[in-house]
Amino acid sequence: MNKNDLAKNAIKLHQKLGGKIRIEPAMQVKSRADLSLVYTPGVAAVSSLLHKNKKLAREYTIKGKMIAVISDGSAVLGLGNIGPYGALPVMEGKCALFKTFAGVDAFPIVLDTQDPEKIIEAVMAIAPVFGGINLEDIAAPKCFYIEEELKKRLDIPVMHDDQHGTAVVILAALINAAKVVKKDFKKLKVVISGAGAAGTASARLLHKAGIRDIIMLDRKGIVNTARQEPHKRALARITNPRKVKGGLSEALLGADALLGVSGPGLATAADIKLMAKRAIVFAMANPTPEITPKEAKKGGAMVIGTGRSDYPNQINNSLAFPGIFRGALDNKVRQITDDMKIRAAKNLAALVTRPAADKIVPGPFDKGVSQAVAKAVK
Amino acid sequence: MNKNDLAKNAIKLHQKLGGKIRIEPAMQVKSRADLSLVYTPGVAAVSSLLHKNKKLAREYTIKGKMIAVISDGSAVLGLGNIGPYGALPVMEGKCALFKTFAGVDAFPIVLDTQDPEKIIEAVMAIAPVFGGINLEDIAAPKCFYIEEELKKRLDIPVMHDDQHGTAVVILAALINAAKVVKKDFKKLKVVISGAGAAGTASARLLHKAGIRDIIMLDRKGIVNTARQEPHKRALARITNPRKVKGGLSEALLGADALLGVSGPGLATAADIKLMAKRAIVFAMANPTPEITPKEAKKGGAMVIGTGRSDYPNQINNSLAFPGIFRGALDNKVRQITDDMKIRAAKNLAALVTRPAADKIVPGPFDKGVSQAVAKAVK
Repeated sequence: MNKNDLAKNAIKLHQKLGGKIRIEPAMQVKSRADLSLVYTPGVAAVSSLLHKNKKLAREYTIKGKMIAVISDGSAVLGLGNIGPYGALPVMEGKCALFKTFAGVDAFPIVLDTQDPEKIIEAVMAIAPVFGGINLEDIAAPKCFYIEEELKKRLDIPVMHDDQHGTAVVILAALINAAKVVKKDFKKLKVVISGAGAAGTASARLLHKAGIRDIIMLDRKGIVNTARQEPHKRALARITNPRKVKGGLSEALLGADALLGVSGPGLATAADIKLMAKRAIVFAMANPTPEITPKEAKKGGAMVIGTGRSDYPNQINNSLAFPGIFRGALDNKVRQITDDMKIRAAKNLAALVTRPAADKIVPGPFDKGVSQAVAKAVK
Repeated sequence: MNKNDLAKNAIKLHQKLGGKIRIEPAMQVKSRADLSLVYTPGVAAVSSLLHKNKKLAREYTIKGKMIAVISDGSAVLGLGNIGPYGALPVMEGKCALFKTFAGVDAFPIVLDTQDPEKIIEAVMAIAPVFGGINLEDIAAPKCFYIEEELKKRLDIPVMHDDQHGTAVVILAALINAAKVVKKDFKKLKVVISGAGAAGTASARLLHKAGIRDIIMLDRKGIVNTARQEPHKRALARITNPRKVKGGLSEALLGADALLGVSGPGLATAADIKLMAKRAIVFAMANPTPEITPKEAKKGGAMVIGTGRSDYPNQINNSLAFPGIFRGALDNKVRQITDDMKIRAAKNLAALVTRPAADKIVPGPFDKGVSQAVAKAVK
């Protein structure tokens, strides 16, 4: 489908549906007897029980199965700061995918504030209903602070999916790509373009998984310890061990993998030619990648992935988030740790029995994806 | 079922269900083509559209059909301040009833704060997702302030159901009770015991509907203009035109109707004997009424209603709230006005074609209840 047709059809479908999720009672209420059990007076016994022991809420209410998908609309898809109403269709879609891919009940919350403290307060206020918080499409760098604070203050798992869901899938894809190009995963020289939510979390997770030579790029060039922004200084401390200076060309010289999480128009075939032989290129900007697969191939790349469904190797966080929260709910996990994420990535990678240049990650509809990821979260 | 069995069965059912509502996708997502329409990249077209015109959110997202059922757990059923976890089963039950009785999608939000300003902030923050706000089980007097502020600040209808849902059903019941006892509705002398959420809203709505002789009672006796609390002083200004002084006995002398929304142990047969002939007694405290129907009858009452399903004439707000929000959503209503509430009560009353002493309101499962109420809200 071409871009215009896709847009038209999406708008038509959304208008027809009027919202992509529905609320359904978990049981039929057909008689006064039913009514007296699910509502007054019978429900009072359950209320008294939970008042005395709030931990039982996971067992007796939706808290044990409900995830909040929360956004302030400050960094939605490639569209930027389009606010809560612009964000709502994306969050609803995500909730539909939670159920479709992992049987997880999820409800979208879009916030009428973009102030970090007020976002934190709102999430804290509504947290009793939920068994986990999926933060979504919140701009960097405030997303780091908001996630950190909520993780500290809440006793349910909190995950900013643009950071960690993406990082898990990138790690999974890179594990298999390394096999295809026959290079030692931990010795890969990796360049990441984009030091926002996805780039930062990916750098951290790849580092944690053992990769030591990572160079981060943002609009100002290679990220170094002289940067002003605290999160970039922190990134610089675990990256760029060879102290390379400059921009894209300097970073790419001899690199094994380029991970694009920045935006279109990053690189050309000539840039890719600077990389080592059998290069890996993930160009994940949506809908327009950092470099087209055709151009990357022209530059000599051997394994190419994008965020799109119409090319091979779709590196998309829908492979990760449903299973991560499925596991978190099933195992009553309070924090989603780096170890869990790395295990999830390895499980995802292992689903591809014979990695090849055009098959490094499973498809979102492949059997067992969310189960493989969920198993890692405990 | 006796009280202990009911409690046991309710606890067993809740444990089995693990939450009384579920989230379901509004469409099946089975292929990459589906995925590209409900999620990226197709959804971006809808997001852009809503960013430009947020009013379209009602048409393209769940906002057009989703009600929030919000409580801080400060006044839950007859249990008092049992907090958000104690409140959650009640709010879930209410959401199940919304769907069952009126096809309305509703989601429970219980808040981890009881501070009025923070409650207001939290509701304001999450309001973009919803087409209406049903406040529930929030203690008086803060419930009045919270509702007023939210009504002022939000462009979607806000209704505290303990106030207005209850008032609508009481008004409906009283309209038909007056017919049964063959008295002119507007000339009824009405005593209301309880000046909390339900009592206050009922007094105001009965007054608006034309009843001029209302006496309010609280723990300190008849409410008068010398009271400290602003909402009670305001109530006193529209009630007690005969300037009766004292307590229950003085108020009941010659009264046509006693409406109990306070708690058990209010009155005896001797008290009812003080009332006018063919007295009306609604004893609506749950689970134990202000006076048992048997005792009220002994005192000479002719029409008796309670909040319970095991006596005739169950005066329960589940007759009103589903239809009120159904109408509000269908007609894109921004405020639920007194005129709408009075029309809703009249429509409810009219569903009982031949009012009798044991049949003054429809049952919650009777055909056409939510439709009759919904028709009034436009």
